[in-house]
Order: sequence, then C-alpha cells, then structure tokens
Amino acid sequence: MHEIDHAEDTIDFRGRDLLGMADLTAAEITTILDTVASFKEVSERDIKKVPTLRGKTVINLFFEPSTRTRTSFEIAGKRLSADVINISVSTSSMSKGESLRDTADNLAAMRTDALIVRHKSAGVPHMLARYLPSPVINAGDGAHEHPTQALLDLYTIREKLGTLAGRNVLIVGDIASSRVARSNIIAMRKMDMQVSVCAPLTMLPVGIESWGVDYTSDFDAALQGTDVVMMLRIQRERHGDVLFPSLQEYASRYGLTSARMRLAKPEVLVMHPGPMNRGVEIAPEVADGLESVILQQVTNGVALRMAVLYLIIGGS
Amino acid sequence: MHEIDHAEDTIDFRGRDLLGMADLTAAEITTILDTVASFKEVSERDIKKVPTLRGKTVINLFFEPSTRTRTSFEIAGKRLSADVINISVSTSSMSKGESLRDTADNLAAMRTDALIVRHKSAGVPHMLARYLPSPVINAGDGAHEHPTQALLDLYTIREKLGTLAGRNVLIVGDIASSRVARSNIIAMRKMDMQVSVCAPLTMLPVGIESWGVDYTSDFDAALQGTDVVMMLRIQRERHGDVLFPSLQEYASRYGLTSARMRLAKPEVLVMHPGPMNRGVEIAPEVADGLESVILQQVTNGVALRMAVLYLIIGGS
Amino acid sequence: MHEIDHAEDTIDFRGRDLLGMADLTAAEITTILDTVASFKEVSERDIKKVPTLRGKTVINLFFEPSTRTRTSFEIAGKRLSADVINISVSTSSMSKGESLRDTADNLAAMRTDALIVRHKSAGVPHMLARYLPSPVINAGDGAHEHPTQALLDLYTIREKLGTLAGRNVLIVGDIASSRVARSNIIAMRKMDMQVSVCAPLTMLPVGIESWGVDYTSDFDAALQGTDVVMMLRIQRERHGDVLFPSLQEYASRYGLTSARMRLAKPEVLVMHPGPMNRGVEIAPEVADGLESVILQQVTNGVALRMAVLYLIIGGS
Repeated sequence: MHEIDHAEDTIDFRGRDLLGMADLTAAEITTILDTVASFKEVSERDIKKVPTLRGKTVINLFFEPSTRTRTSFEIAGKRLSADVINISVSTSSMSKGESLRDTADNLAAMRTDALIVRHKSAGVPHMLARYLPSPVINAGDGAHEHPTQALLDLYTIREKLGTLAGRNVLIVGDIASSRVARSNIIAMRKMDMQVSVCAPLTMLPVGIESWGVDYTSDFDAALQGTDVVMMLRIQRERHGDVLFPSLQEYASRYGLTSARMRLAKPEVLVMHPGPMNRGVEIAPEVADGLESVILQQVTNGVALRMAVLYLIIGGS
Repeated sequence: MHEIDHAEDTIDFRGRDLLGMADLTAAEITTILDTVASFKEVSERDIKKVPTLRGKTVINLFFEPSTRTRTSFEIAGKRLSADVINISVSTSSMSKGESLRDTADNLAAMRTDALIVRHKSAGVPHMLARYLPSPVINAGDGAHEHPTQALLDLYTIREKLGTLAGRNVLIVGDIASSRVARSNIIAMRKMDMQVSVCAPLTMLPVGIESWGVDYTSDFDAALQGTDVVMMLRIQRERHGDVLFPSLQEYASRYGLTSARMRLAKPEVLVMHPGPMNRGVEIAPEVADGLESVILQQVTNGVALRMAVLYLIIGGS
Repeated sequence: MHEIDHAEDTIDFRGRDLLGMADLTAAEITTILDTVASFKEVSERDIKKVPTLRGKTVINLFFEPSTRTRTSFEIAGKRLSADVINISVSTSSMSKGESLRDTADNLAAMRTDALIVRHKSAGVPHMLARYLPSPVINAGDGAHEHPTQALLDLYTIREKLGTLAGRNVLIVGDIASSRVARSNIIAMRKMDMQVSVCAPLTMLPVGIESWGVDYTSDFDAALQGTDVVMMLRIQRERHGDVLFPSLQEYASRYGLTSARMRLAKPEVLVMHPGPMNRGVEIAPEVADGLESVILQQVTNGVALRMAVLYLIIGGS
C-alpha cells in the first residue's frame, strides 16, 4: 500500500458515491490525487473553462450554511461547464417536512447527475445515496466525514512534500467534533502516514484508542517531530466553559503561536481547514507565515473537486 | 373539443403569459402537451443541453419558499441554455417596500425575457403581467392557480392512459386551499374529463357548485370507478383542529391506504403534487406502489417547463 | 477637463479596482461611458450573449440584501458569458466570524477574476481590495460610494442631453445617508457639472461646504434652472420623526409632485436610483411621466456593468 504506486487503469469512479474516506482504498485515493494535477494545470494556464461536464446537472444541497465549500464546488462544477443548482434548505420547502427520501426521489426524478450534500447530522448523505440512482458527494455530515476536505489536504501535503507514506501529521484541537479530523485520520492511515492528535481530553472522541493514532497532551514536544501540523477550528458557539476553562487558556495551551513554531522543523507544513479563529487556535503571523499552506488548501480544493466531479460523472 | 385533435399550426405562444388554465383553450393545452414529448426524448437520449434559449434571461422571482418548483424551472431553463437568475424575496430589497409594479418595471428595464413568479397572494402574477412587456409564468399564486402543475399532471395522465377525454379523476383533500386542485379542475373540464372531489365539507371552496365537478363524501365508493386519484397535501401548519378533529382521523377517513387501494381499479393512477405527508394523506406503500406516478410527475415537470419556456420565449 | 474629449488609447482598466468615483479622472470616466454604448447596441440588436468573459469567475458578495444591483451585475456578467457566483452573507459561514481578510484570501485562492461587494460599512470594499489580487468592484459601501450607480447616472444624462459639462443637477433628499448622492457629486464635479443639493438641514452631511456644491432650501426655486433633478429614497426605516416631523410633511416640502414639475424646464430629466417610495419623495405620475428616465437608468445599469466588467477583467 504505497501511495506513489500508480493506480491501475481499471479503477473506475463513474457513478460511484463519495461518502467518506472509509470507503476508499489507498489505490483509489492515489488515482484521485493523480487526477487533480491535470486540473490544476488547466487552471494555472488560465484555461479555466473546459466542456467536460456540459449538459450535466449538479445539485448543491446544503442543509447547513457554508460559503467556502459550497462556493468551491460551484466554481469546480462551472469550470467543467456543468449546470450547478444551489438549494439552501433554510429557504426551501423541504422545511415543509418532506422526508429526506422524498427529497432524494424528487431530485432523481429531475434527472440530476450528482448531488453534493451537507447536513448537520451524520449519515444523511449515506441515506440519500441509498435512494438516489445518481452519485452523492458528502460535503460534510455532522462530525462524521468530509472526504473532499481530506483529499485536498492529502493532495496539498503530497504536492509540498512529494510523498505521503511515513510522514508524521499532528492534528490539534477539537478532534471529537471534527469531521475534517476524522476523514483525514482515516485517509492518512490508509496512506501509511503516522498521525498524532493533541487536544484536551474533553475534546477527544470516545473510542479513539481504536483509530490507530497516537495521543499526546504535550503540544510542544509533539511539534518537534512532525512534518505537518493541522490546526482545527475551535467553535466558539459550541464550547463555552463546558469543554475548556476559557478561550484564552485554550489559546495558550493549544494555540499555534510563533513561539511554538520555533520548536517545529523549519520545513513543517501548517494547515487549517478554515474558517480560522485567528488568535485562538492559530496566531495571525503563523496563519500568514511561510510554513502556512492554508491558502494552497483552498486553491487545491477547487481542482480536487473538479477531479472528483470529473471522475464520478464525467467521461463516457 | 377533443384533446387528441392536433392543434392547428397557427397556435403561437410566443410572448404570451401563462397565468392560469382558465386562459387556455383545449387546443392550446393540447399543443403544449404535444410539445413536451420532444423535450422528454431529448432528455432520455441523454442530450440534456440544447441551445434553444441561449442569450435569453429568465427570472425566477419567488416570494414564497419553494424547492421543487424553483429547481424544476431552473433546470428546465438551463437545459435550454437560458441564463436563469434566482430572486428570493425574503433576502431581497423588495422588502424595502418597493411596489410590485416597480419590481416589474425594473425587471423589464433589465431586458429579461421571461418572469416566473410565485406569491402567496392570488393575482400577483396577473398584476406583474400587466406591467411587464415580457411574458409572465405563474408558478403558484395563493390558492388560485398553478398552471404548470396542472399541465404536467395532464401530460402524465395522457402519457399513461393514452387519452384524456372521458377519464374520471378523483381529487381528495383540501380543495379550498389548493391551487393545484383549482388549476387541474379547470384544465380537466376543458379536456372533457370527469372530475369528482372528496373532502371534508370544511375543505370545500365556497361556490364549488359552479365548478362542474361532482362532490362525494364517500372516498371508498368514489375510488371504485376512477381512472386517476389525485391526493392533495394536508398543510399541518395551516389546519390544526380548525378544519378537522385530528390528523389521525383525517388519515383514517381521507388517507389513501393500501387497504383502500384494493377498492380501486388495478390500473388506477395515483398522483400527488408533493411534498407528501406520508402517513397522513397517503400511506408510504401507496406513494411508492406500482400505481403511483408521483415521480413521473416530477420528471415530466422539467420537460413540461422546458416546453413552456420554448413555446413562450423560444423560436424566432 | 472636457468629458467629450476622447480618452487616450492608453487608459487601461485591466486589473484595476472600482472602489469609488474619487479614484477616477474625467478621462477615465469618459472612457467607461464611451464603452457602454457598444454594449447597449449589442443588447438592443438582441444579441444578448457575447463570449467576452467566458471562463472568468465573478463573485457577487453581498453583505446587505439587494435585488436590483445584484441582479444587474449578475445579468451583466452572464451576458458576457462569465460564471457568476452569488454569496449572500446572512446565509453563509462568514457569520461564523471569519475575518474579512480571510474571506478575501479565500476567494483569491479560488482564482476568482472579480469580486463585486456590497456592505453596510464604508470602506469594506477597500479593505478587501487591499488583500485580493483580483479586482474589487464596490456595489455600495455604507453611506460612502456606489460608483457604478454614479456612472450609469452620468451615462443616462449624457445619452439624453448629449453633454455633461456645464449641466445643472439638483439632488434632493437625504444627502447625508446616500452613497448615490456622494458618488454622483464627486463624479459630476469632475465632469464640470454644476451640482446643487436640496434637503432639510438634518439630512445634510457634516462638511458639505467643502464638496463644491450649492445648497438650497427652496426646492421650487432650484427646480426652475436645473437640467436634471435627482430624487433620493427616503428610508422610512431609518428616519422616524428624528430627522423630519413626518413623511407627509417631508413629501409636501421635498416631494417631486406634478405641481412642482410645472416649475421646471420642459426638457428636465427626472432621475431616481430606486427603489422609490411613490407618494413620498416622488409622486407616481412624475415617476411615470415623460420627463422620467428612471427606467432608462436601470437599462443602462446593465450595459454600464457589462462595460465595467469588460474593461476590468476582459480582453488581453
């Protein structure tokens, strides 16, 4: 299981769902990452529109507000010439109490080619996928999975470091609430990476012993050996003093400051899925520092989503 | 007045409004239904994008939240290569108190080619049509009309049964509040169909005696002779115990259950405009049963709206 | 500084922001106005779609609700074949507390070609422009500037009167709260026009002495000599009896009625940026009268925004 092995020609994603990293093999992940590169090239040579998905209808069905993920998928779809339809559920008749299954059936009946869905409850994309004949892409379901985020993170690491296998990654923050952490841990383990998590005990998920990651409470020590440090957003609205005494104390123990950065390897990669709380989990000068690849993550997110849409609904 | 007569070549919809079934002759309805077929074919042969309306601007102006109708029109417009602009009024400056007439004038001044409008008040599309030089399509106005729904229902019946004239239709539920029922009754009468309604007396509109429909309170008896049974959504939010003792009692007297389905002809069509309250007006196993054409209604809705947009703003 | 001088060929807007009229020279304004004409022609010859911006991504980032300006930019972008992405912030994750700078950085990282932004606070477009490599177009920032509105107003005046220099303009209403008034005054002064303002003293901005405009409290007298009268919207929600005794009294002293119109030159132009409060600042018969160019302003708004997008992100 080496991620630099080229995927066999036989891997075919057409018509498949992308619900979580748990469903993908290392070879499949590698195929997806290999496909991103060509879309990045297109984008960088300023040929931003390709006719690949002309005539395809992609639905962005968001039950939770989102700017960056929705926009990233919308731009990706439009650059492939798909028709992208946004449905934001707070302003929709689905609030009339229609069941999720009926929603799926209806979108299928309109002959849509792919459904991108975000929901605050884990498992909703999976439920929709069971009913929809066309592919479903999970754009985040509760604290469960956010596979395109993990894929763009892997792509960014591979782009910067050349390889994935054997690399050390330190994920810091509210692991228990984070679908980003969960998808990344699953994916990174498949790619033979070494993952450690650092968080207050109150922010660790039940059962993390079985996730195949190391736990550390000593951020400073853990920083020294890592190739990548991935900071998670602290959700001010969710945690008061329930999970931690105060934001200030959280920032002082788990925030990535420039003082702490001096402990890390010079070539460490600093990542964050956004949106950031500058001054809480990450200091502004670190977010904008030379080690930060946070904006490359965003750039790669569009190319990654182009690749995913292309692999799943493109081609013949 | 036979709906299978082919419409003369002289029927020209270009530039006309589609405000209600009350404005259409049987020949005009037939022309529209005949046009749908070609768009269904395009769609089924997977040629989903045609350049027919390239360069045309279609506005979806929704004063009421809607997913399925708005999405259906948006997909229809985009498959014809129109530019579709969504305006949802709760998030718009029309809440600044601009008059409907000024709204119409402004959209006209932007040289839009068609306005699709939904509003909770009857007559709003008609008022807008008076001021707008470009065509207005009513996507539902209060309890008044919803002509594209009636047209897609007629198309679905004709597709399944071959003919409309002489067919028996039973409409069950809150007739008084339903623009779907009203548009269908008007249209079906024009197509020489026999319409019966079944509902608690509290859900009948004033003046129904003049609508040319039969009234029955005996759902079981009425089911036996009908070719089509069309169930209407019970709006939980609108009816408490005001119009009926309880939802449970409503479901037991007016819900379409599988026990009741055994009373109907084997080839009966079960229809519902959606969204459904499964377990209230329709049992889940009936909604998903062999007799149900509910999802065909949705599929036909896109093709019907493509046909309507094509007839009204397409061509030369 | 004569606005009919043809701009030198050397004026190049590519990659520039459009933040306010304060940043443009008379020659630059003239270049923009000269460019509008060709887009109006295209539009009037019913060639509504041109491939100029194919492959370009334009973001409509609206922190304040808006129908007309957002729709005008969206139509303009789509007629140029750009991909237009709407982000309305009340329904977005920016409410999660992401900083404006991070928003800008993220949109830049997605390789967007232009950002159109409206915000209730003055200076937000400028702040975003500092961080974004791609151009920012101010679609209204607080009471500060609304440059595309001023440009379409100038275009409309020039189209109707042939020239700008030396023309008298009377702006009536809540000058202090109006970004439209402010942008127009700045622009008109640059084009050597004579501007007077008429308003209750409570609706004049601090420091207006330095704006180079005449102040009058006598609407009737001022009307007699003016070529253009521009009425501003009274924001019912903002002013109670704080700034004026009552709407009725405001209307009687500062409303443009047909009685007052008899004092003006026969060929006076009546303008309003919309949305209008008919019966408050403008009588319905005046809004719809022969002298009114209010709807031409809206029509020209689309062509003007096409010209601006073309100049800023089009061509090579």
